[in-house]
Amino acid sequence: MELDYTLILDIIGVIAFSISGVLAALRKRMDAFGILIIAFVTSIGGGTIRDILIGAPVIWMTQMIYVYVIIATTILAVIFRKKLAFLRKSLSLFDSIGIGLYTVIGIEKGLKYGFSPEICIAIGTISACFGGVIRDTLCNEIPSIFKNEVYATACILGGVSYFIFLKLNFPNGLIFFLAGMTVILIRLAAVVFKISLPSIYKKEENIEDYW
Amino acid sequence: MELDYTLILDIIGVIAFSISGVLAALRKRMDAFGILIIAFVTSIGGGTIRDILIGAPVIWMTQMIYVYVIIATTILAVIFRKKLAFLRKSLSLFDSIGIGLYTVIGIEKGLKYGFSPEICIAIGTISACFGGVIRDTLCNEIPSIFKNEVYATACILGGVSYFIFLKLNFPNGLIFFLAGMTVILIRLAAVVFKISLPSIYKKEENIEDYW
Amino acid sequence: MELDYTLILDIIGVIAFSISGVLAALRKRMDAFGILIIAFVTSIGGGTIRDILIGAPVIWMTQMIYVYVIIATTILAVIFRKKLAFLRKSLSLFDSIGIGLYTVIGIEKGLKYGFSPEICIAIGTISACFGGVIRDTLCNEIPSIFKNEVYATACILGGVSYFIFLKLNFPNGLIFFLAGMTVILIRLAAVVFKISLPSIYKKEENIEDYW
Repeated sequence: MELDYTLILDIIGVIAFSISGVLAALRKRMDAFGILIIAFVTSIGGGTIRDILIGAPVIWMTQMIYVYVIIATTILAVIFRKKLAFLRKSLSLFDSIGIGLYTVIGIEKGLKYGFSPEICIAIGTISACFGGVIRDTLCNEIPSIFKNEVYATACILGGVSYFIFLKLNFPNGLIFFLAGMTVILIRLAAVVFKISLPSIYKKEENIEDYW
Repeated sequence: MELDYTLILDIIGVIAFSISGVLAALRKRMDAFGILIIAFVTSIGGGTIRDILIGAPVIWMTQMIYVYVIIATTILAVIFRKKLAFLRKSLSLFDSIGIGLYTVIGIEKGLKYGFSPEICIAIGTISACFGGVIRDTLCNEIPSIFKNEVYATACILGGVSYFIFLKLNFPNGLIFFLAGMTVILIRLAAVVFKISLPSIYKKEENIEDYW
Repeated sequence: MELDYTLILDIIGVIAFSISGVLAALRKRMDAFGILIIAFVTSIGGGTIRDILIGAPVIWMTQMIYVYVIIATTILAVIFRKKLAFLRKSLSLFDSIGIGLYTVIGIEKGLKYGFSPEICIAIGTISACFGGVIRDTLCNEIPSIFKNEVYATACILGGVSYFIFLKLNFPNGLIFFLAGMTVILIRLAAVVFKISLPSIYKKEENIEDYW
């Protein structure tokens, strides 16, 4: 039963990521196929890299539900694209749930395959973030998560919290829930209060000068 | 004997893709090594992603013929680059044969590894299209197949036709031939009659307005 | 004991590549996390692609030393970024040692997994060069190694020398040393004497004219 619950949350993440892919592709005026591919890589890119890195079978290739959800979301998002503005705030919510869940699922998959905590945190963060990195690269942009957003930071902190809760001998389901919530709340707080990482650059600093 | 015939067609595809890679690299004024690498990734990028996704050994790493053909094609294409304009129409033909063949080979490889029809069609389309996606990404362009070309669409329709012919119990060789021809003819028709997908954008529609 | 010596040289390569990643990310004014990720992919991107292609476990996922060195280097490079100009020449040296070592390690890993000499040279070159390719792609630039630099060329020539020394029945350690030095010296000579590949373009030649 818990599996189904996870699947539902996972699907919410896929939907949110697909919509963000559709929007990025629409902005570049891609054709119908381009939009579908961008939605696809945004949703499953992170998980694909995760599975290739750890040597596991690539998940969307054996669980058809992902492909169907992405196709349906893409069609609906294109048709109702004018209405998406109203969804903007809920989208941040879905997206935050998505990265929270992807981070923890990635960590647990890493643990199952015998990797160390540090590597598991990296795997979780990659699962959550690299779909967006591929999306932006294919759209010929510098990946947005590299530019002043508390996004990967939320995943990393949530990942650290996972191993703290594990050390404290919390039960498994609770660790999953608490670490996922840590990611989600940090990310949501950053969106709501417009928090960004402290800049490492001084005003008018020009790196070219040093080099 | 059929295997040799497939290999010949496969080599034609590799040549066509290598030439398109050389041309893209020349336009960006890359050096000799850059041109070779772009020719290489354009030719074998799609197949490499296919093999990594399905967990198969990467084909060009064990069959040296690919590497030799790509190197020879690149050298000849650079030397005779002024003459390539005359090849333009034949190139579209070679290229279409290439994607037709790559699509069907990808589908059959997917079936051999036990994937479902939908995933096999995705695998075939990725085999045929992602070499060009990597080529354009490394050349710092938005992948051309995402912009109003009946390219991946031809692969997807050909892939669907493959499973229709399979359902009709056609013999294996005939299915291979008919599905490949479906891809090739749709792609060639699009090139010859300058057909593109119907635009999903209204005139002067600005996606930024909604968001 | 030789293993430790190799590890030390390997770490020097990782440090040099991390610093080049940090500098590229600083130029794009990325945030702290973006800088870390770029340092990471520059250092371990080539080796990751190598391991995925040959079907080996990805090395940095089981040897934590890489992750720690990259994180420490990134933090120090960001803090002391004004001082890096003084390191510029030593950096070329470190970087050259890095690609020399990565090339030979890649070749030997390829041989261990049973690949042919040509493919092993390709694997070595990919190990040494593709970290930089991913770095530049994520920074939305055309990869610098594709543009008139004797970089991959040094790796390929060093790789060829490896198999010449092997044919001459030199002892293993000596082959490793000589082939690595070939890469390093060609690369350093190109940097010091500002050598680049002969241009294949005629003055004011415009490839668009042919096409």
